[in-house]
Amino acid sequence: MSVSTDIVIIGGGPAGMSAAVNAVARGKSVRLLSSEGNNLERAEMVDNYLGFYKLTGAELMLKFAEHTAALGITHEKGRAANIMPLGDYFMVNFAGDIIEAATVILAIGVAKARVVPGEEELLGRGISYCATCDGMLYRGKKAMVWGLAPDAAEETNFLNSIGVDVKMVAKGERPSELNPSIPFISGALKAVIGDDSVKAVDLGDATLETDGVFILRNAIAPSTLVSGLETENGFIKTSTRMETNIPGLFAAGDCTGSPLQISKAVGEGLIAAQQAAKYVDKAKL
Amino acid sequence: MSVSTDIVIIGGGPAGMSAAVNAVARGKSVRLLSSEGNNLERAEMVDNYLGFYKLTGAELMLKFAEHTAALGITHEKGRAANIMPLGDYFMVNFAGDIIEAATVILAIGVAKARVVPGEEELLGRGISYCATCDGMLYRGKKAMVWGLAPDAAEETNFLNSIGVDVKMVAKGERPSELNPSIPFISGALKAVIGDDSVKAVDLGDATLETDGVFILRNAIAPSTLVSGLETENGFIKTSTRMETNIPGLFAAGDCTGSPLQISKAVGEGLIAAQQAAKYVDKAKL
Repeated sequence: MSVSTDIVIIGGGPAGMSAAVNAVARGKSVRLLSSEGNNLERAEMVDNYLGFYKLTGAELMLKFAEHTAALGITHEKGRAANIMPLGDYFMVNFAGDIIEAATVILAIGVAKARVVPGEEELLGRGISYCATCDGMLYRGKKAMVWGLAPDAAEETNFLNSIGVDVKMVAKGERPSELNPSIPFISGALKAVIGDDSVKAVDLGDATLETDGVFILRNAIAPSTLVSGLETENGFIKTSTRMETNIPGLFAAGDCTGSPLQISKAVGEGLIAAQQAAKYVDKAKL
Repeated sequence: MSVSTDIVIIGGGPAGMSAAVNAVARGKSVRLLSSEGNNLERAEMVDNYLGFYKLTGAELMLKFAEHTAALGITHEKGRAANIMPLGDYFMVNFAGDIIEAATVILAIGVAKARVVPGEEELLGRGISYCATCDGMLYRGKKAMVWGLAPDAAEETNFLNSIGVDVKMVAKGERPSELNPSIPFISGALKAVIGDDSVKAVDLGDATLETDGVFILRNAIAPSTLVSGLETENGFIKTSTRMETNIPGLFAAGDCTGSPLQISKAVGEGLIAAQQAAKYVDKAKL
């Protein structure tokens, strides 16, 4: 089938940008999707990526962004919640929209998400990572959003708008963009409670009954982003051609394992893009 | 044992320079040895190495050289003729000198050398790639130099100085630096003739009797540079950690296979340097 985008790249760090630059060089249509924040932006000084020295991580990211901009590549900001492999194409759930892609490159960096007790056990039975995907299941029911991602307030508003009885829990102050009619609790999710399905959440000094919990993180563990994706010690397993175990799905950069370094990420981004381009060409035959 | 250099890098292209930059970042002593010329220098335009765009290959090489210079890394020009693995260290024959190294990284690019008929059969039985290594074997005997490398005239002078009855064959005009007492033939080596050992060379319009042939190329096939090195289709076989089959010997860049691209070379240079540094640290325990 013909889909709107040849290569969707998840992640706007060095691996994702290198993949984008090389996909464009191969004449492929590309969308570069990235969440907020990047480890490199916080690096004090980077001296070991050939061609640049005595730059901060943020300065180097600007150089990289100049390059992608010069090639007409846009960084689309938002959170990729879910990727569905559908045999000959992929559906990517991004910031509430659905993107159809012939191939997908995961360049999602290192997931620093710490799993909450009860999360793995109750995933899919009351716990969701994607308000757009699963919101309708909680229409007329109680749900809470554990908001770690910058778009968590908007996602909570969305759940409220479709008739979910939703509360938001997050650290710090009530987000200004949160709909005033939605209750906000400043705190942290300590555990999810339930047997067959979610019954309540433990907020440390309070227990809150709920039917559903939306855990909205910036970083998503790779195996929860794509069902069936093979990982090893939390890193995505790839061949030397950056193929994952799912045909048409590639991975590059920190998410494939050590060394967690720019040069390695950039090199892998190139290889992933070349292989994805080849995959697209073959599929079009 | 304690040797003079932690990491000797053979090759001054992107892979070798990336390895050098990363070896220095790890606090290792480094020598970066490179022959003349590099494929990248001849690239018309490079757009797909993240951070740089609309640069010619030569301009990009200058950026890379600025980086290595800023870290105090010198490009030593000359030809590495032979690398001997000696168990716990290496001896590198470079421009007539011997360098002792704890580890070696091969970043020698793609060998474009076309093998001459008879060359593989008679290697080590009258054919040599290294005047300094094997010159003494031909003292008082006849030898010829097939000069493709810029230092071929000097190597011929050396053979002459130790008492070899040597002639030089090369394309084009007689090199000005060739000792006037040495016969020069403008031509090309078509084949080496012999059974158990070299008997003569075929120069197309003439056959010349000789005991030895020194074939001095810029690019040396990896397996002739290091005896016992495993290759596959002419490329050096490595693990994902850029280890070759010889402990302490690593490889990076075009010489390990496709894609023959800067980003891949730079990424592999990083990994090879990190692994070589680890190897040095372990050996010092």
